[in-house]
Amino acid sequence: MKRRPVVLGLDYGGTKIAVAVGDLSGRRLGVTTVDSVAEAGAEAAMTRSLTAARDLLADVAPGQELAGVGAATLGIPYDDRVELAPTFPGWGALPFGQLVRDAFPGIPVRLGTDVKAAAAAELRWGALAGCDPGIYLNLGTGLATAIVAGGTVISGAHGASGEIGYNLRSAADVWIGAEERTILEHVVSGQALETTGSARLGKPVTAAEVFAMARTQPDAAVLADEFQRELAMHVVNLAIAIDPVRIAVGGGLVGAWDRIAPELRRALDAAVPFPPELTVARFPSDAPLVGALALGVEAAGAVLGAEAFA
Amino acid sequence: MKRRPVVLGLDYGGTKIAVAVGDLSGRRLGVTTVDSVAEAGAEAAMTRSLTAARDLLADVAPGQELAGVGAATLGIPYDDRVELAPTFPGWGALPFGQLVRDAFPGIPVRLGTDVKAAAAAELRWGALAGCDPGIYLNLGTGLATAIVAGGTVISGAHGASGEIGYNLRSAADVWIGAEERTILEHVVSGQALETTGSARLGKPVTAAEVFAMARTQPDAAVLADEFQRELAMHVVNLAIAIDPVRIAVGGGLVGAWDRIAPELRRALDAAVPFPPELTVARFPSDAPLVGALALGVEAAGAVLGAEAFA
Repeated sequence: MKRRPVVLGLDYGGTKIAVAVGDLSGRRLGVTTVDSVAEAGAEAAMTRSLTAARDLLADVAPGQELAGVGAATLGIPYDDRVELAPTFPGWGALPFGQLVRDAFPGIPVRLGTDVKAAAAAELRWGALAGCDPGIYLNLGTGLATAIVAGGTVISGAHGASGEIGYNLRSAADVWIGAEERTILEHVVSGQALETTGSARLGKPVTAAEVFAMARTQPDAAVLADEFQRELAMHVVNLAIAIDPVRIAVGGGLVGAWDRIAPELRRALDAAVPFPPELTVARFPSDAPLVGALALGVEAAGAVLGAEAFA
Repeated sequence: MKRRPVVLGLDYGGTKIAVAVGDLSGRRLGVTTVDSVAEAGAEAAMTRSLTAARDLLADVAPGQELAGVGAATLGIPYDDRVELAPTFPGWGALPFGQLVRDAFPGIPVRLGTDVKAAAAAELRWGALAGCDPGIYLNLGTGLATAIVAGGTVISGAHGASGEIGYNLRSAADVWIGAEERTILEHVVSGQALETTGSARLGKPVTAAEVFAMARTQPDAAVLADEFQRELAMHVVNLAIAIDPVRIAVGGGLVGAWDRIAPELRRALDAAVPFPPELTVARFPSDAPLVGALALGVEAAGAVLGAEAFA
């Protein structure tokens, strides 16, 4: 009897690369991480990750069939490049999809942005199960969303749907290029709150610390309120456009969920004709890796489906 | 030999109700309209429209099978009511879907908002064919959009997706109820431009006239610019969220397309990571009626599909 097939998930971030092997139900059989070491170059990081993946497969799934590979990354991955990944030098020029395919010849591969992968995980196994449509909101170092509808993540014409970090912040920003205006992500994101918070509070603080300090310190409370207000505006308008069943929130700022949730809830209730549910994601911290596994399962399933009709 | 089946399309607006009979390819075999006469009551309007529909069927498709009915309306239709239709007194309380079903027993019926119906028409026969995803933007008396993805119009959890007329206009509007703030549609719509234009230019003007006057009169130019700027902000942010192949624009303001298109084009190019195509819709003026036919074809097709597997 053939042993049960497994899938491989790869999640490429700017500081670390996570690798997981799982079964077709999403259960993780093994996980490992390697440092990205951005300064050593994109190609070296890719090579290290693929070696780690092969080692992990040999370790936790010896002799088992690899049925699919899912690869999630910062930026927007294609076979020959990665778009919108300025924070990882050289990453944009990497033939990302091709390198993953070459490493596992004949195995179906599916690529996704880290946030879309996270949404796929929530749709398949988590807080967005059965939501049509639904929204995954990533409040992490950066800001992005993913829209799910019809049982799948909406990819977009160029794989770039949900990248609301580029949003115009006001009508005054219309007709001004992204380089000459302050894009939303530079104000509403973990990174932005850390930078602004450290500058305005006079000492290095994390985004979570700004929210914690907001309980007692007026300066921090102003910062947190500005952040919440602008975040809410864009989440509300997206919710009006999509009319989702539910919004599931993941990313590092979920650590301040007790502060973020009530204000976002109140904003949705005040403005959206049919206010959606609001919940923390099932996999708030490692959703992109779980999502990479989900992409791997989808890749495997797509081929099984195609074979069934061959 | 059985004669070819036909479908019925009904489009309920605040001033007129349009009725069409078409074949399964969307070709119109006959069209008629009846006045809504809102002051005579919602039920009377519905009764008149259904009589007109039966007469038209008897006239242009005698003895032919009615395979499906599509009904589009202002507001959001359900079997037992219509939501978000404040401009037509009594319309909200009408058991809309039920009345249409009762009028054509045993015939599959599909309901849709007028803008979603228009999007269905553009997706099936018009400017959004093959777009995955795509956006239909209605610049008419009101303001709304419809998102198409995966070959269908995204309905939303409550049929309310795309209703960007309710959008927050700025971060200052967050946490304020829709009644106490100026919603986007009250500033960016044909009706809004007519009202503001008439007040600020000191004489009754249509929205199209404001755009025409903007060529030579500074006051009108300021109005048109404000309108364009705020419209562009919301279309840009929606385009960033969806990453559509194309945005197709319909509705009465398409009459000012030569003014609207270049500015919207410039805004998309400046701000959207992968700027979508921008085009006028194939059915800019009667898209909801064509869309009602498309809903009728979908209703018929859904049943045919189900029977094929029975």
